[in-house]
Amino acid sequence: MQRLLTPLKQALRLQRATQEPCLTLARLLPAAHQRFSTASAVPLAKTDTWPKDVGILALEVYFPAQYVDQTDLEKYNNVEAGKYTVGLGQTEMGFCSVQEDINSLCLTVVQRLMERTKLPWDSVGRLEVGTETIIDKSKAVKTVLMELFQDSGNTDIEGIDTTNACYGGTASLFNAANWMESSYWDGRYAMVVCGDIAVYPNDNARPTGGAGAVAMLLGPNAPLALEQGLRATHMENVYDFYKPNLASEYPMVDGKLSIQCYLRALDRCYASYCHKIQNQRKRAGINQAFTLDDFQFMIFHTPFCTMVQKSLARLMLNDFLSSSSNTQSSLYKELEAFRGLKLEDTYTNKALEKALVKASLDMFNKKTKASLYLATRNGNTYTSSLYGCLASLLSRHSAQDLAGSRIGAFSYGSGLAASLFSFRVSQDASPGSPLEQLVSSTSDLPKRLDSRKRMSPEEFTEIMNEREQFYHKVNFSPPGDINSLFPGTWYLEQVDQLHRRKYARRPV
Amino acid sequence: MQRLLTPLKQALRLQRATQEPCLTLARLLPAAHQRFSTASAVPLAKTDTWPKDVGILALEVYFPAQYVDQTDLEKYNNVEAGKYTVGLGQTEMGFCSVQEDINSLCLTVVQRLMERTKLPWDSVGRLEVGTETIIDKSKAVKTVLMELFQDSGNTDIEGIDTTNACYGGTASLFNAANWMESSYWDGRYAMVVCGDIAVYPNDNARPTGGAGAVAMLLGPNAPLALEQGLRATHMENVYDFYKPNLASEYPMVDGKLSIQCYLRALDRCYASYCHKIQNQRKRAGINQAFTLDDFQFMIFHTPFCTMVQKSLARLMLNDFLSSSSNTQSSLYKELEAFRGLKLEDTYTNKALEKALVKASLDMFNKKTKASLYLATRNGNTYTSSLYGCLASLLSRHSAQDLAGSRIGAFSYGSGLAASLFSFRVSQDASPGSPLEQLVSSTSDLPKRLDSRKRMSPEEFTEIMNEREQFYHKVNFSPPGDINSLFPGTWYLEQVDQLHRRKYARRPV
Repeated sequence: MQRLLTPLKQALRLQRATQEPCLTLARLLPAAHQRFSTASAVPLAKTDTWPKDVGILALEVYFPAQYVDQTDLEKYNNVEAGKYTVGLGQTEMGFCSVQEDINSLCLTVVQRLMERTKLPWDSVGRLEVGTETIIDKSKAVKTVLMELFQDSGNTDIEGIDTTNACYGGTASLFNAANWMESSYWDGRYAMVVCGDIAVYPNDNARPTGGAGAVAMLLGPNAPLALEQGLRATHMENVYDFYKPNLASEYPMVDGKLSIQCYLRALDRCYASYCHKIQNQRKRAGINQAFTLDDFQFMIFHTPFCTMVQKSLARLMLNDFLSSSSNTQSSLYKELEAFRGLKLEDTYTNKALEKALVKASLDMFNKKTKASLYLATRNGNTYTSSLYGCLASLLSRHSAQDLAGSRIGAFSYGSGLAASLFSFRVSQDASPGSPLEQLVSSTSDLPKRLDSRKRMSPEEFTEIMNEREQFYHKVNFSPPGDINSLFPGTWYLEQVDQLHRRKYARRPV
Repeated sequence: MQRLLTPLKQALRLQRATQEPCLTLARLLPAAHQRFSTASAVPLAKTDTWPKDVGILALEVYFPAQYVDQTDLEKYNNVEAGKYTVGLGQTEMGFCSVQEDINSLCLTVVQRLMERTKLPWDSVGRLEVGTETIIDKSKAVKTVLMELFQDSGNTDIEGIDTTNACYGGTASLFNAANWMESSYWDGRYAMVVCGDIAVYPNDNARPTGGAGAVAMLLGPNAPLALEQGLRATHMENVYDFYKPNLASEYPMVDGKLSIQCYLRALDRCYASYCHKIQNQRKRAGINQAFTLDDFQFMIFHTPFCTMVQKSLARLMLNDFLSSSSNTQSSLYKELEAFRGLKLEDTYTNKALEKALVKASLDMFNKKTKASLYLATRNGNTYTSSLYGCLASLLSRHSAQDLAGSRIGAFSYGSGLAASLFSFRVSQDASPGSPLEQLVSSTSDLPKRLDSRKRMSPEEFTEIMNEREQFYHKVNFSPPGDINSLFPGTWYLEQVDQLHRRKYARRPV
C-alpha cells in the first residue's frame, strides 16, 4: 500500500510548501474520490489557521435486522391500543439478539462507512466512540475497532470512548471538530462513532427501547458544517436515568423527572445559544434577535417521538415568552392566555403543553417531523439517536430543500449533559456535489427498514430473556442463525473463559 | 457574585474590541491573580489564531490519608523480602475505605485546585474526567462535579468522561488542549480531572494497587506548554488488562502480555514521535536526529516503579538500534553485544534488559527517578499515574532546574491506547513567575505523604473486604470515621435505596 500512496505524499509535500490550509477533502468523497492519506502521519505544516467548514462529509446508519411491532406489543402487554403507537409515537422497535453487542454494532457501522466511501484505512487520524452500553469498565470499544485498521498498519489514531448517557455521540463530535481546528490535526479525517443497545426490564419502559449505531466522517469543506464557535451547553447533577446496577443491562429511570430535566436543559441551552449567536451577530454589526425562524430544520435527541414534538413546542414557548407584547399578540395569538408565565413553572402544565403542540404543529411538520422517521421505526438508540434523526432528515428531503439551511440540533444525556448547536448546509446542491452525495447516500433508509424481519412479542421477549441469561456468561458462542443478520454485519462469535470477545462478519 | 465581576466584563469587552488573542491567564495564577471570568459565556471575538503555549497552569494531587507499608505486606503475604519494595520498586501503597469512591476523589481534587488558585467557579469553560473506576455505566463523574459549580450558576461547561484503562487522563488533556485551540474556545480555563481506585483480588497483583486523583488547570501562556502539533499515538486491540466482570471491582490481568504491550507501544510511539519532530525540524531547516538527549526529563505511566526504569532503558535501546555503527561504538559501548537486534524480538530478553538498565542508570537518575516519588509511596493510580509523576518531578526540582527544558511523557492504557507527547517548560523561573508558583505548589508533597496514617496489612485487608461487601449494596452509610480523612476531603455520605449517592465534605 505504501507505494500506491506515493503520489499523494508528493501532493501533501507540495501542499505544505505552498501553505494552503488543507486538502479539500469533501471533494474526494465518496465515490469519485482519489486516494488520500498522510500515511507517515506527519503534521501538515499549517500556519495557525482553522480549516474551513469542519463538519460531516459522510454518515452511515446501522440498525438490527429484526424488530417488534408496537401494535403487537400493545396487545401482548394488554394495554390500550395506541399507548405506544400514539402516546409514544413509536410504531416499531429494533432489537439485538445475543449475537450482537456494542462492539459488533460499531464494527459494522465503521466498516460499512469505510467501504461506501472507499477511503483507505490509513486516511483516518482520529476515531472516538460515544456509548453508554458498557460491557467492559476499562477496555474501550475504540480499541476493538482498531482491529479493522490492522491490515493498513495505521495505529496512530487518536481518541477513545466517551460516556454520559445519550450525550456521548455529541461529546465525540465536538472533540473531533476541536481536534480538526487545533494544531494537532494532521490533515487526516476524523471519525465519530456512536451506538447503543437500549433495553428495559419487562415493564412500562420496555417499548421505549431500540438499538443501532451511527458513524460519521468529519473533515473540512463539509456539506454539513458545524457552525464555528457556536455551542451552548448545560450540565447538572441529577439522577433522572442512570445505570448503577453494573450486573444488569437495565437502567434505573425516573421518567417524570427525566422529562423535566430534558425540557429544563432545552430551555437553558436555547437561551444560551440565542445569546451567543446574537453576540456573534452584534460583532458583525447585525442587530437582530434569534428565533426559531432562523432554524430551517430542528432535530432533537429522541427518547420517544412525542417527546420531540413537545420539545419543538417548548422552543416556541421560549420565543413567545421572550418576545415583545406586540409580537405576542400578532404572532402567537393562540398562546395569549399564557402570557407572563415563567418557564420554570410550566414543566407540568398540561393545558399549556396542549396549546403549544397545536400552535407549533405547522412548524413541527416543516422543521422536525421528517427527522423522526428512523426513531419511529427503530426506537431509541441513546448516543446515536440525534444522528439517526439527522440521517432521517437527509433521507426525507432533497439536497435542494436542504441547501443553505441551518439545522439546529439538541443533544441530551441524562445525569445530565446537554448541548444545542447547529449545522450550516452548503449552498451547492448540484448533482455530484458533496451535499447531493451525502443526501443520496441516506435514500435507502426506508428500503432497509422495510427489509427487516418482524418478530412476534413472544420471540422478542424470549430474546430479551436470553440477553439477561448470557449477560455475564463466559465460555459460550451466542445462539442464533447468522443468516438472520444483514449481509456484512459483524457479530459476536465467542466469549472465552477469560471474557475475551471474538467477532466475525457475515459475508456481504 | 455577578456584581463583583463587572470590571472584568469590561476588561473582556475591551479585549474583544482590541482583538488581542486572549488574556494572559498564567499571570493571573495562583495567589496574586485577579478575578477572571466570562460569566456571560460569550465566545471571544477571536480571529482564527491558536492561543500561545496552551498547557498546564496549575495542578493538584490528591491521595488517601492512609497507606499500607510494602515491607509489612511482604511479611503478611509470606513472600521473600524485597519482592515488592525492590522487585516492584514500591515502598508504600495508598488505599480508600468505602467512604471514598471515584466521585468523592474527583470532588476533592477539583475543590482543592479551585480553592488554591482562588479562581471563580464561572471561569471554567470545560471540564473532562478520565477514569476507569466505573460505578455507573451511564452517569458521568463529570455530572457529579457540576454540584461544585452550582452556586456560581455556571452550567455551561463542556466535556464529559472518557475511558480506556489508564489512558483517560491523557485523552482528556488532549481534548482540552484541542478545545482551547479551536474556534469553540470561549476564553475560559479548561480543567482536566483524572483519578482511579486501583484494587486487586488478594493475590500477587494486590501490591500493585493504589488510589488518587489529579486535577489540572489548562490555559494559554502556560509554564508547562504542550508542544504544538506534536503527538504520537499507537492503538491496538489486545486483552492485556480489562474489566469485563462488571459485578466486581477487580480487573482481569495478563501481566506478562501487558508488559510486552506497554513496551511495544512505547517503541512505536517513540519512533513516531521522533519521525514527527524530525519532520518539524526539517521544515524549520534543521537537519538533526532526535534522541533521548533532547528530553531533559522523561515521565511514564507507572504501573509499578521498576517498569519505568526498564522503559527508559528501552528508549535507550531504540536510540542505540537506530544510530550509526560509529555512534553505537562510541556512545553505547556496553551495548555492543546487542547490535543488529530487532526491537520486536527483544521483549523477553533478560540479558539485554539488564545491560540496558545498567547502561541507562545515569540517565534514569537525571531524567526520570524524581518523577517516581509519588508512585513509589502511593502506588498506581491508573489514569492519574502519569500526572502524579509530573507533580513529583516538579516537587523534586527547582524552577531553575526545569526552566527551558523539554519533558517527554508516555501515557499507556491497556486494551490498548498509548501516546508520547511533550511539554516545553517556560524559560522564566524568577520568583513569582508562573513556573515558580507551579513548582512551589507541589513542594508539600513529601509532607503530605508523611502525614498519612500507616495501617497494618490486617486492617488493609479488612477494608478491601469491606469494599467487596459494599460494592453493590444500596441503602447504607459507609462505615468509618470521617476524621480519618484529610481535612477538606469529600466523602460518600450515603447510598440510598435507588443507588443515588450523596456526598459531604470534611471541614477544612
